Amino acid sequence: MALLITGVAGFIGCNLARSYIDQGHTVFGIDNLSRGSLDNLLAIKPNPRFTFRQVDMAQLADLRSVVIELHQLEAITEVWHLAANSDIPAGANNAQVDLRDTFMTSFNTLVVMKELNIKVMAFASSSAIYGDLGDQPLVEDIGPLLPISNYGAMKLASEAAISAATENYLERAFIFRFPNVIGTPATHGVILDFIRKLKISPHRLTVLGNGNQQKGYLHVDELISAMMHIRRHAKDKVSVLNIGSDDEGASVRYIAEQTVAIVAPHACIAYGNADRGWVGDVPRFTYSIKRLRLLGWTPQLKSCDAVTQAIHEIAEQESAK
Amino acid sequence: MALLITGVAGFIGCNLARSYIDQGHTVFGIDNLSRGSLDNLLAIKPNPRFTFRQVDMAQLADLRSVVIELHQLEAITEVWHLAANSDIPAGANNAQVDLRDTFMTSFNTLVVMKELNIKVMAFASSSAIYGDLGDQPLVEDIGPLLPISNYGAMKLASEAAISAATENYLERAFIFRFPNVIGTPATHGVILDFIRKLKISPHRLTVLGNGNQQKGYLHVDELISAMMHIRRHAKDKVSVLNIGSDDEGASVRYIAEQTVAIVAPHACIAYGNADRGWVGDVPRFTYSIKRLRLLGWTPQLKSCDAVTQAIHEIAEQESAK
Repeated sequence: MALLITGVAGFIGCNLARSYIDQGHTVFGIDNLSRGSLDNLLAIKPNPRFTFRQVDMAQLADLRSVVIELHQLEAITEVWHLAANSDIPAGANNAQVDLRDTFMTSFNTLVVMKELNIKVMAFASSSAIYGDLGDQPLVEDIGPLLPISNYGAMKLASEAAISAATENYLERAFIFRFPNVIGTPATHGVILDFIRKLKISPHRLTVLGNGNQQKGYLHVDELISAMMHIRRHAKDKVSVLNIGSDDEGASVRYIAEQTVAIVAPHACIAYGNADRGWVGDVPRFTYSIKRLRLLGWTPQLKSCDAVTQAIHEIAEQESAK
Repeated sequence: MALLITGVAGFIGCNLARSYIDQGHTVFGIDNLSRGSLDNLLAIKPNPRFTFRQVDMAQLADLRSVVIELHQLEAITEVWHLAANSDIPAGANNAQVDLRDTFMTSFNTLVVMKELNIKVMAFASSSAIYGDLGDQPLVEDIGPLLPISNYGAMKLASEAAISAATENYLERAFIFRFPNVIGTPATHGVILDFIRKLKISPHRLTVLGNGNQQKGYLHVDELISAMMHIRRHAKDKVSVLNIGSDDEGASVRYIAEQTVAIVAPHACIAYGNADRGWVGDVPRFTYSIKRLRLLGWTPQLKSCDAVTQAIHEIAEQESAK
């Protein structure tokens, strides 16, 4: 019995695949390789328990034929759907990007699961579905859900489609809502941005926004651990859980200062004036993981520690290039 | 300055158009005429303030060219987007129906509004976005939103896309969440079903489900009045409001008995066993319109009175055929 992971060549996908393979599972991975990279799969590709196919999931016919082929190799019993546009600003400029890569990938996955009678779906949703709720702690049962990015909107649309499917043919659905996840292989995000900027100009780091944006950060190893914990222990037909650190978060200023300290100790930092980096960026929020704690999982790292660890890992990744 | 109403040939669309025309506005109406009907527009079509175009809004290029043409006649300043699949069971069987008619119609409307710089969107959402939250009163800030029909899922997806658009190019958005609306011209719904069944077999009315499903019902005249009140008085950039009756609702049993009493007094009624009529049907819920009351609007009719009035109106409509 096999697992299908979509977006397997992305940052989270490749970590999840490695983890499941290490546990002895058969893993089928698909990706359109638009933002993910085969480099991320180098470590697991030789493993006989892993099979990769490149496919554009936004094209239903292509997705269907690839999944049918894999399903014939070994029956797929559940899908971990991680594929999405990961470039939020790109989606803010052009809604078609998130329609296609964040929503239609989900919709088409559900269509194929129905056709092949695959009954368990685990979905990587996002804190972006909450929009900007000000100082209210983000708990799973808060509303109204008014996302401020097309990325968040299409993640919420995906949640909704999955939820409706559980009333029909899906037996179980796990919806993980998480904010910024960091670690390696880093493909995007503020830490990688800063390290690359400093590689080009080691004396000056220019920061979008005023640096006061503050968010919780979760290390990818902890995210994988939390998702697997939920998969094993959650009991609802549709389980919706926030995953994150529930501390005060780390500010962009902290990340900039730590990155400079670790990577280019003599650089100065220049901040902008805006209270957010781009349209769709939520400046500040408090994330509640009470429901996850009640289920028995607690993060080991605080946001700031996760940031520091990730800066070291990403700096190493980049210096190896 | 003109208003664009999508789904104008539907039950709510034609009532809204008439109301705006009566107030002296220019109204452009579009509809794919798949479920709406030109018959519904007979009363307003001769009016020089009304222009109708048939178009499949799920086809972006077609929608764009029609809206550009209308916009050149007179600048469109706001869009009232009512077009959607209204056959919920059809969408439960085939998710493509609501993807196309309930979601892509919204998505494409937003694309065209961005291109033409139209900045105000009023959207007919639905109580179906709440899913089945059991006995909890449905307030606007409840969650998690786990719709149990593809119709509800694609309405929620539309809300999300509209919300993201207000962070970008839309200036104002009005999201109306309403449950069962009744009145004429009836195109679907339980009252019309019952009346048509009784026309075919006047001695026996067969009811899907056990008749205990209980919902709030709102008369279409009240819905129009509430939407216009919100349009005038709500102040938020994105205003999300439930519209409905907040009484205990009317049961299917009540509707069946009243319909029989009015239309075919000698018929017997045969109930099924299920606690819901179809997949995606929410058996019972309590709707909160506290936010709407605070904004100064209160329904004049109770659910049961709205039902009785609508039975008379729909019976008249059907006997005229």
